[in-house]
Amino acid sequence: MRFLFLILAPLFVCQHAIAEVRTKTVEYQDGDVTLEGFVAWDPAVTGHTVPGVLVVHQWMGLTAYEKGRCQQLAELGYVAFALDIYGQDDRPGTIQEAGQTATIYKQDRDLYRRRLNLGLDQLRKQTGVNKDQIAAIGYCFGGTGVIELARSGAEINGVVSFHGGLDSPSPDDGKNIAAKILICHGADDPFVPEADIKACVAEFDAAEVDWQMNIYSHAVHSFTQPMAGNDNSRGAAYNADADRRSWAAMRIFFAEIFDQDVFKKTAK
Amino acid sequence: MRFLFLILAPLFVCQHAIAEVRTKTVEYQDGDVTLEGFVAWDPAVTGHTVPGVLVVHQWMGLTAYEKGRCQQLAELGYVAFALDIYGQDDRPGTIQEAGQTATIYKQDRDLYRRRLNLGLDQLRKQTGVNKDQIAAIGYCFGGTGVIELARSGAEINGVVSFHGGLDSPSPDDGKNIAAKILICHGADDPFVPEADIKACVAEFDAAEVDWQMNIYSHAVHSFTQPMAGNDNSRGAAYNADADRRSWAAMRIFFAEIFDQDVFKKTAK
Repeated sequence: MRFLFLILAPLFVCQHAIAEVRTKTVEYQDGDVTLEGFVAWDPAVTGHTVPGVLVVHQWMGLTAYEKGRCQQLAELGYVAFALDIYGQDDRPGTIQEAGQTATIYKQDRDLYRRRLNLGLDQLRKQTGVNKDQIAAIGYCFGGTGVIELARSGAEINGVVSFHGGLDSPSPDDGKNIAAKILICHGADDPFVPEADIKACVAEFDAAEVDWQMNIYSHAVHSFTQPMAGNDNSRGAAYNADADRRSWAAMRIFFAEIFDQDVFKKTAK
Repeated sequence: MRFLFLILAPLFVCQHAIAEVRTKTVEYQDGDVTLEGFVAWDPAVTGHTVPGVLVVHQWMGLTAYEKGRCQQLAELGYVAFALDIYGQDDRPGTIQEAGQTATIYKQDRDLYRRRLNLGLDQLRKQTGVNKDQIAAIGYCFGGTGVIELARSGAEINGVVSFHGGLDSPSPDDGKNIAAKILICHGADDPFVPEADIKACVAEFDAAEVDWQMNIYSHAVHSFTQPMAGNDNSRGAAYNADADRRSWAAMRIFFAEIFDQDVFKKTAK
């Protein structure tokens, strides 16, 4: 039996070791403003770099939700960094405060883009990140953010916007976009007007941007957010189908931009 | 060495045997009209049934293109059956003839639906097909067909329409739809008017159909068809990105409706 074990042992070593995802907070600066991000990675990945994914938070700021998404991404083999747009001293406590703070950045896109790019810099600095394989994902306010990041001319492979606002005060900036874009949109989202979708498509097409839009029936705003409840009539609600489908769409989008093989050979 | 081989041999047996996909033609009848379909399967799959996929042809009728898609599907582990709408005695030789023949079925949806359901019956009869796990996919004329199949009330799990026409002479038939629907649409397709898309969405929403629509930038009609060339200005052209992306979207749609796990655990 011992002889058998010695022969077979190496066959098991090459199995992927399942380890706990590791996380830590990361402080960084925009002048005097201290920003506090969050990074998650799989410590079992060693000896090679992996793609990095930037996660841009919603209007409430960096919360447990975005940290959870980072952990999910780390479990898929990525290094994920949730940036902080608002800074340590601006943590909205209510929806009203979140609306006020988000409006500052929506009205000052230069400031928003600067904070987005500072977050991107931090992602690239993280241990194990392949600096040439970078994506950004964002939800709601952050879904707007990842497109703003692309519009700023960031040299990243792709962005995924989940129920993000698509309006742009400067549509000509579409010409700066180098990233491929996947927009995941709820068909019944009352907060993303059809006029904004058309303007965004026109902006992208004029600049020959490589974009895709996935539309999910019966989904309203915040369809990825369990805390949004299930009352579509409020205009924002969780939709488990749209959440699961948009996450799967993100995975095949990543597979394309990072040249990964994510599908099993057969699906029997 | 022989002892070593005897110990290790069982470890290799559990690898999936890679065998050639098998195919055959299948004749069936609609009254006096003989229809000739085509089935593809993986003979390495034994001892259990697998989901079946119906493939609905384009306006030129059942060609090598649809047969090739059946073979691709068989390689993924499905039994795939390409039906025949037109019959052995109606094989269009030119685009003009194809247009005339397709128009017969587009104008007589009852006839079209009958032929679609006869094809579905044949798929369910094929060896190894799980009769309760059925999808239908179709291209162009066939992309219209799979939605007509759903509108006919066919009890199937899902349909995928690739650059199909979405118009319906009887929108109230949306209430018959039991299947989930994925529409893969080229953003610049001049043959699928926006008014048809809106009417189709309204039809589906009124009937609470579970639908998704994936829109691919810079793609026109026939984006999955290499033989369509690459001149978008003609309104129909191949688009490799949209072809690859829509196929991947189909795979995760199948994974959902057939409760399959298609993703590798990690994508490193």
